[in-house]
Amino acid sequence: MKIGILGYGNLGRGVESAVRQNPDMELTAILTRRDPSTIKPRTEGVKVYSVNDVAKLKDDIDVLVLCGGSATDLPEQTPEYAKYFNVIDSFDTHARIPEHFANVDKAAKDNGHVALISCGWDPGMFSIMRLYGASILPEGNDYTFWGKGVSQGHSDAIRRVKGVKNGKQYTIPVDEALEKVRAGENPTLTTRQKHVRECFVVAEEGADLAQIEHDIKTMPNYFDEYDTTVHFITEEEFNANHAGIPHGGFVFRTGVTGFEKENKHVVEYSLKLDSNPEFTSSVILAFARAIDRLSKEGQTGCKTVFDIAPAYLSPLSGEELRAHML
Amino acid sequence: MKIGILGYGNLGRGVESAVRQNPDMELTAILTRRDPSTIKPRTEGVKVYSVNDVAKLKDDIDVLVLCGGSATDLPEQTPEYAKYFNVIDSFDTHARIPEHFANVDKAAKDNGHVALISCGWDPGMFSIMRLYGASILPEGNDYTFWGKGVSQGHSDAIRRVKGVKNGKQYTIPVDEALEKVRAGENPTLTTRQKHVRECFVVAEEGADLAQIEHDIKTMPNYFDEYDTTVHFITEEEFNANHAGIPHGGFVFRTGVTGFEKENKHVVEYSLKLDSNPEFTSSVILAFARAIDRLSKEGQTGCKTVFDIAPAYLSPLSGEELRAHML
Repeated sequence: MKIGILGYGNLGRGVESAVRQNPDMELTAILTRRDPSTIKPRTEGVKVYSVNDVAKLKDDIDVLVLCGGSATDLPEQTPEYAKYFNVIDSFDTHARIPEHFANVDKAAKDNGHVALISCGWDPGMFSIMRLYGASILPEGNDYTFWGKGVSQGHSDAIRRVKGVKNGKQYTIPVDEALEKVRAGENPTLTTRQKHVRECFVVAEEGADLAQIEHDIKTMPNYFDEYDTTVHFITEEEFNANHAGIPHGGFVFRTGVTGFEKENKHVVEYSLKLDSNPEFTSSVILAFARAIDRLSKEGQTGCKTVFDIAPAYLSPLSGEELRAHML
Repeated sequence: MKIGILGYGNLGRGVESAVRQNPDMELTAILTRRDPSTIKPRTEGVKVYSVNDVAKLKDDIDVLVLCGGSATDLPEQTPEYAKYFNVIDSFDTHARIPEHFANVDKAAKDNGHVALISCGWDPGMFSIMRLYGASILPEGNDYTFWGKGVSQGHSDAIRRVKGVKNGKQYTIPVDEALEKVRAGENPTLTTRQKHVRECFVVAEEGADLAQIEHDIKTMPNYFDEYDTTVHFITEEEFNANHAGIPHGGFVFRTGVTGFEKENKHVVEYSLKLDSNPEFTSSVILAFARAIDRLSKEGQTGCKTVFDIAPAYLSPLSGEELRAHML
């Protein structure tokens, strides 16, 4: 399988790295909107192309991984590149998924390609877990918790506060809430009861720390509905301890069965990830394998993770899977 | 969807109960090898038939759930009934799955039906988790733990010991092993380090308790490779506290990503089930929905849980799933 990457940020580099762990894949092209000479891939022999050269690459890429952002890049890029290639993205603006799906589906069908949108872990693996859980235990409740992990959006928001030189925000599930869900108590949880927010801030010299803390904690939409802690640290400590992009979370399904609904069941799926973009990339490549196969079977149009049978993700044959993994 | 049940034991009653939780399903027939008049279904209006009447029921059942045992029932029954119906079973003799698959596949294809074998939670949901984990993190390790839960086979073994009136055996994962896996330490674990076995025994009057304990703990294949605890309790305590059939377990995938393989990831899926047969039945019905759909699409042959796209398990449409679950 020939993999192409469009966009060489954290996610693009994650895909580049993950390709090396999949012997049936090779990275054949990196596409960029920047000047290609400014990009130095870590994989020897991989060529970097301008997005303007896309038409030349039709035979060099089986699946193009779109590594742009959901706000403005992907709504344009995924339908556009589905004209030329099988494509996969990690579009994560939940409310706009139906519209994005429709646009990508039309472009993919009109041009005989397969596309898969909203791949990764949420949306992605967490969505699959919510679907399995609700299908197996129809009378029950769903709970999704995120963290402990870095929220890019909240970290950006901190850095826009006056007097802040650098900052990072961790979203952390509240242990007490996790334990109640895990015990099958089916609690009703407010936003504040589910997650806390912990901020590590490097202040500019002479900045008013009390004012920074107040500005962060009262910021509407981002922090005002949460219990937030602000730690002021030095730039050295920031670089030493907060350079990574860890994340993770939990999906629960709790439900009842039995003639009297007398039996409780708790299903829990959790992720602890040292690198959010690298794990996301790894999920994307497994699904890229699936859409390459669907394309070779003659399918077209837009898919989501819900539409992919698990066997399509594995390099192993059906016989091997049944003999060793079932 | 018209559901039929063959075999009215714990699993069959679990299916009967679970059908009531799925508004798109109804239970239309219970088939039995016994005298039908000896079976009293809990669902009003459901008819009980002898297996000899199977040919009459072709139009009354969309999917027949085979609720027999894996040792002798299912190897015969699943291929046999795949001649008449779409069928689903919970065949769990891992080593014989390829042979069972081949037999069922032939019968299903020859007669235009869809079959699904080895459904439940292990094999079943745990298999799916192992497959997702290995596909996403190709450089990593799998761990499966079972329990805390009742092992039917080990409980039967206890009850065959001289002087034992009644007994139940719980398989329990070792906390220390779970914690090492969860921490991403990739431990190599012996049988003894993964699980302990706890037995609750009601002895016959005047029995030699020390001898019973010795006979259990040294029993080859069942107990000799494990740390086993034996508790002697009264019949009253047994009935009060050990009547249920709880089970559960854990599937982990731990792996690394990054150019230097510097980032660790831990994926954990766990089940805590008050009733093993009722949860198994609930999984089976979700997959029964899938095979009914595949059959209506014109597919034939034998499938496993690996071959079923998650969307097929849900009563919701693709649009609804994308809008609310992705």
